[in-house]
Amino acid sequence: VDRTCTSAAEVVIVGGGIGGLANAVALTRAGHRVTVLEQAAQFGEVGAGLQLAPNATRILARWGLLDEVIARGVLPSRLVFRDAIDGTELTHLDLGADFRARYGAPYVVIHRSDLHQILYAACQRAGVDLRTNATVTRIDGGEHSATAVLPERSHEAAVVLAADGLWSQLRRPFSDDKAVCSGFAAYRGAVPIAELTIPREDLAMQDVVVYFGPGCHLVQYPLRGGEMFNQVAVFRSAAYSRGEADWGGPEELDGAFAQCHPKVRAALATLWRDRHWPMFDRLPIEHWVDGRVALTGDAAHPMLQYLAQGACQAIADAANLAGHAAGAEPNWEAALAGYQAERTAVTARVQRSARFWGETWHCDGLARTLRNALFRDREITDYRYVDWLYAQSPSPAPVVPRSVARDPEKEA
Amino acid sequence: VDRTCTSAAEVVIVGGGIGGLANAVALTRAGHRVTVLEQAAQFGEVGAGLQLAPNATRILARWGLLDEVIARGVLPSRLVFRDAIDGTELTHLDLGADFRARYGAPYVVIHRSDLHQILYAACQRAGVDLRTNATVTRIDGGEHSATAVLPERSHEAAVVLAADGLWSQLRRPFSDDKAVCSGFAAYRGAVPIAELTIPREDLAMQDVVVYFGPGCHLVQYPLRGGEMFNQVAVFRSAAYSRGEADWGGPEELDGAFAQCHPKVRAALATLWRDRHWPMFDRLPIEHWVDGRVALTGDAAHPMLQYLAQGACQAIADAANLAGHAAGAEPNWEAALAGYQAERTAVTARVQRSARFWGETWHCDGLARTLRNALFRDREITDYRYVDWLYAQSPSPAPVVPRSVARDPEKEA
Repeated sequence: VDRTCTSAAEVVIVGGGIGGLANAVALTRAGHRVTVLEQAAQFGEVGAGLQLAPNATRILARWGLLDEVIARGVLPSRLVFRDAIDGTELTHLDLGADFRARYGAPYVVIHRSDLHQILYAACQRAGVDLRTNATVTRIDGGEHSATAVLPERSHEAAVVLAADGLWSQLRRPFSDDKAVCSGFAAYRGAVPIAELTIPREDLAMQDVVVYFGPGCHLVQYPLRGGEMFNQVAVFRSAAYSRGEADWGGPEELDGAFAQCHPKVRAALATLWRDRHWPMFDRLPIEHWVDGRVALTGDAAHPMLQYLAQGACQAIADAANLAGHAAGAEPNWEAALAGYQAERTAVTARVQRSARFWGETWHCDGLARTLRNALFRDREITDYRYVDWLYAQSPSPAPVVPRSVARDPEKEA
Repeated sequence: VDRTCTSAAEVVIVGGGIGGLANAVALTRAGHRVTVLEQAAQFGEVGAGLQLAPNATRILARWGLLDEVIARGVLPSRLVFRDAIDGTELTHLDLGADFRARYGAPYVVIHRSDLHQILYAACQRAGVDLRTNATVTRIDGGEHSATAVLPERSHEAAVVLAADGLWSQLRRPFSDDKAVCSGFAAYRGAVPIAELTIPREDLAMQDVVVYFGPGCHLVQYPLRGGEMFNQVAVFRSAAYSRGEADWGGPEELDGAFAQCHPKVRAALATLWRDRHWPMFDRLPIEHWVDGRVALTGDAAHPMLQYLAQGACQAIADAANLAGHAAGAEPNWEAALAGYQAERTAVTARVQRSARFWGETWHCDGLARTLRNALFRDREITDYRYVDWLYAQSPSPAPVVPRSVARDPEKEA
């Protein structure tokens, strides 16, 4: 019995997270029939808030989804960086009218599940074939097609995309690399404003605030039009450094922030203490495409969170591939080759830069002194550290000239 | 037999180096009779070049010695900071007309022995009693006088100054501290231009150039109107770090600079390899005055060389004390109290800042990346890191407002 379905879709996407659904939205807009295979019993997202920089919101605007994203999220006024020890502001990025004009789109923060729902609804409207309880065990490549193999039934399509995230099993044929553990643990908490124990005068309800500390940091911003408050506290685990298997537990959390300013320590009380996330990334790889199989999103380029670009780069992947494959009967080989060439270069830089920013956020001693001087010296209108990122186009041509887009991590 | 000489001088200065002679010049100008006791068989200085920033040259101008200092030295155009690994310029301080107008005096580099000779000749002209082969074993303090005790003959005076340098024996009653070894060794070389093996196109004959490297640095500048070239190569000794007693030898020199740019390595060939200087400083102390005995110069506040302020601060000590003790029959108690209060505060900051700059010069990794970004970001007309130092007045009132004179080391 041939259980392979050949006619259902031109593209099969394995994984129904934000990256998988973004690809489904982009490819249906480009004229293709798409099936999404999600192994869970239902589509959904766990977690708390996420940040969408203009390189992603420009794409969401083009897809007709930005208004809804803004309606369910928050448009912060500023991205504020503070020293976690003394609490003082080091610099801020004004996210207002000048910023939006410069990058052609706003900076938005939104709950992960809200963004996921918006993408899911868009897929439904576009007629994407959305399937749950679908565990793909491997992808078989062919010359002009590929097949997502499941225990019960396989799906053959012109292209199969692996969007199965950081722990991607489908990445294996592309690389035998292991996810790299940073030794940092993240605690999150997205709670209704009424549940917060932080003094109201210490709440920056219009800003994304990041406190840099030695071996730790705290991110705070509002969600859902200000009804919720989102916090992420991240620290280098001493237990991990000692080689202990059980590390990052709540008993380490308070100690990691003990030397921080009272405003920072006050935030820890409203984190979810019953779960935490060890932080992983992978090193960049050069090949995401093999015949008609391609990696996308975290399966292709998992990154540390310090540039808040995980979702943004997954959305950019989707826009890029769809841009190369627009219209009926595209040249898929050329489309995938262009996608690979352009997106591996950009995301490798984001992965490396995210590591660099993590070091910069968490440093101590002389490096902290120099970082604080550098940040304090920054002109508020100096965009050179973000131009290269926020002005990124999903197409090859950069929006800003290369000379403007200086890459701090290149100095290292 | 009473061998004590009571009438020769109002002030006896123990030590005839740059600091001792500067005090003699200042105090004779203030109307006092001065004797200088030098333990060596003749007055003189060893070493190579030194740098005189405007906080010192303003004083030399007041003493009528600046024209001669300039005539025998060099007025560099710029103080240039470069990365020793890639050789690129990080920033520079323009030492031209704007700089001179801002600080009321020029930046001058001069051979140590030339500055010493100028001060010596000024002492001779002023009738200072200059004595050699005079080893002072201790200073006996009295209520209204002090006595410099020598094996043969002692010198009683209204005030005795201990100007016996880093290894001061006369400091002992003030502090039982030890000189602090930095574990860095300095190689110097001041040679006629003709002897240089550096390619001429690599010679910056108008500039003071400092190359910052990981655990090492190189300073280069011309001397004697450009007839000579002065170099100082300094490195952290691995042998010292390993606890070896014999460290800093020439076998360590080349290895310490092995990863530096060829322009930096080329400089090492014309250093004097037959001698080197281990670099020491001491922690600041609060009391330099006991009755009629006072410390001055390196005996009071030996510092690391990274701000090039050793001679400058000794000259400032001299100007400060003489300013408090001007005219016949000064109130020496008040003068010494004012001197101690003002000069301990300033020099403690210079000592601490010099250590901080050393760390900044010699850092690697993330700190190097951040330092280079900070230095490259600096506006050429931004004087805030030097205002606090170069605008120093020997009197208590600062020339620039405190808000301008930001102290980078305070961040640490």
